Amino acid sequence: MQLSERTSRLSPSPIREILRVIDQPGMISFAGGLPSAASFPSIDELSVRPELLQYGATEGESALREQVAHDLAGRGLDVSAEQVLILSGSQQGIDLVAKLLIDSGTPVAVESPTYLAALQVFSLFGADFVSYQPSNIEALRQTHTPNLVYTIPTFQNPTGHCYNLAQRQTLAKVTDELGCVLFEDDPYRDLVYDHCERTPVCSFIERSSWVYQSSFSKTYAPGLRLGYLVCSEDLFPMLSWLKQAADLHSNRLSQSLVLSMLNRRDNRLAEVVDSYRAKRDAFCQALEQTLSPYCTWSVPDGGLFFWLTLKDPYVQDTGLLLQESLKRNVAFMPGDPFFPQSEGIPACLRLNFSHASEPEMKQGLSILSELISIAND
Amino acid sequence: MQLSERTSRLSPSPIREILRVIDQPGMISFAGGLPSAASFPSIDELSVRPELLQYGATEGESALREQVAHDLAGRGLDVSAEQVLILSGSQQGIDLVAKLLIDSGTPVAVESPTYLAALQVFSLFGADFVSYQPSNIEALRQTHTPNLVYTIPTFQNPTGHCYNLAQRQTLAKVTDELGCVLFEDDPYRDLVYDHCERTPVCSFIERSSWVYQSSFSKTYAPGLRLGYLVCSEDLFPMLSWLKQAADLHSNRLSQSLVLSMLNRRDNRLAEVVDSYRAKRDAFCQALEQTLSPYCTWSVPDGGLFFWLTLKDPYVQDTGLLLQESLKRNVAFMPGDPFFPQSEGIPACLRLNFSHASEPEMKQGLSILSELISIAND
Repeated sequence: MQLSERTSRLSPSPIREILRVIDQPGMISFAGGLPSAASFPSIDELSVRPELLQYGATEGESALREQVAHDLAGRGLDVSAEQVLILSGSQQGIDLVAKLLIDSGTPVAVESPTYLAALQVFSLFGADFVSYQPSNIEALRQTHTPNLVYTIPTFQNPTGHCYNLAQRQTLAKVTDELGCVLFEDDPYRDLVYDHCERTPVCSFIERSSWVYQSSFSKTYAPGLRLGYLVCSEDLFPMLSWLKQAADLHSNRLSQSLVLSMLNRRDNRLAEVVDSYRAKRDAFCQALEQTLSPYCTWSVPDGGLFFWLTLKDPYVQDTGLLLQESLKRNVAFMPGDPFFPQSEGIPACLRLNFSHASEPEMKQGLSILSELISIAND
Repeated sequence: MQLSERTSRLSPSPIREILRVIDQPGMISFAGGLPSAASFPSIDELSVRPELLQYGATEGESALREQVAHDLAGRGLDVSAEQVLILSGSQQGIDLVAKLLIDSGTPVAVESPTYLAALQVFSLFGADFVSYQPSNIEALRQTHTPNLVYTIPTFQNPTGHCYNLAQRQTLAKVTDELGCVLFEDDPYRDLVYDHCERTPVCSFIERSSWVYQSSFSKTYAPGLRLGYLVCSEDLFPMLSWLKQAADLHSNRLSQSLVLSMLNRRDNRLAEVVDSYRAKRDAFCQALEQTLSPYCTWSVPDGGLFFWLTLKDPYVQDTGLLLQESLKRNVAFMPGDPFFPQSEGIPACLRLNFSHASEPEMKQGLSILSELISIAND
């Protein structure tokens, strides 16, 4: 048996591996980007129209595509429904864009750190990573010109960072000048707790091709596996053909459910945001009481994560720290897999604040604090 | 902008393009493998357990994996639930297997003709096709040794052919001897109208690695986008990681629905099969009354299609015939896209018999007959 060349770069997602253990009774999880179960919409009686059981359009249900285009206009991104491709979750968009643009050795620019499952897919297809910082986007001009620039400008995963207006405009301008494709991943933008700039970077693009994607997992329900992308018109046919080849079309029941939830126009999302803001604040307070001697962090204006950098000379191997904390029933994400490079990585932790209850937060963070202090002895 | 090398081989699926037009009012469609809407299970009141809305396991829901493993044992394929990977439709299995095994130039053996969307995906990843006939499997020993042998042994798409026991055993033996991976695609096996051998070829494999996949689209509902694969233990971790990278996991609502339908153990599937058998017989009769001067065919023992070969010297360009028939509101699939090669292809039509009503069948086939006779003038 001869495996493909790309399997030499195939690896499990560390986050999916950790998600396996967090269902264990008593586990306090700061690991996943799991929305709070209390945030899920209630689906009490679902009547399934029989036509939804038949094969559907690759691009998605027309009414949902129109609603998405309408909502994007409100974000500052003017697109037509014909540019909307419904996805089986936004992870699928990463797969499709990688297929479209990445061969072995293709230079791909990513923030460092960035979403680990994007690194996983880009790497599988052979990406040669170029990294950049939101504070120094201009540096991209000095690198090997990337084919693709991947960005999470709003409440970035894992750092929680949100690009200001000037950074957004600079990224669009640099992309235009380099002539590469901008791929903007925006799953968290509706989970906003403090005012900040959220206009899509793609709306500032003048010439380049671009893909913007988002997800219904964070605002509605991950189990429905639904997201979407919109893109410049030149890319749409190819991304749509790649979607055909990947799974024909997305689940029609989920599309119908999400559309009806979008049309409800109730206060559910505002309430979810209020409850997450309170959780963020409680988490921040608990952090200050437990981990401030050992770590630094910024308070995120939105999203689901705190990103902690361990102060020198505390624990450098966060993988070992995870092994110890799992024994104490506390799960978190070590920072290493979020970096495109393997050397010179600062010791970091990504802590999700939306899933655990307030008493669990305090308990879990106390345990982490204790383990770090022991490691330092 | 620099697209990936594989996009040079990217093309739309002809079937998905035709499916776009068949929703037009008055269209009689023999084109898709669309199950009859009357066959769909009724989902009147669906109560959605909140936990199904959360992220789930990449491999699928445990109870569904166990049920699939149990059902496969009844087909003669002894596997454990740990070898079952739930898919977002069996098209996804083709994508995952292609990622696992196919690089540019990899020899891949396929029946000629075969499922066009498998050709589409294998080709995208760079497959170099080797073709074989069920009647001459031994010929594979004389070709450039393939890395992968793809087969639809039961009610093949498009031909409807079903391998007999000797052919199944030979295919397994040749695969074992060549040391390549066998990929068995089996979506139609439950749509059986006459007795025939249906034991999975994979059950006869002794040494080689293998993947067997099936779908719930044909027996339950395509709109739920659910299928599964099982494979030899060596391949499971990699296929599961590829699934993670593709869409994290499959829709949990669909998994719950399909599991409850599998557990109903009612007569629905038997009734669907009875009604399809009657449709096949009616279609066969209508074919004899209309197209026998122009075409030859075999009556399929199962599945959803008749495969017609045009008699010389009738219409050779079935693409042109389709253009004309669409003007008369009749859709079908031209044979060409089902062939891995582009030259020396016989003129063929694939006609689905499960979707149209009996009066529509007669009318549609009469129109086709008329168009072929005109083309011959």
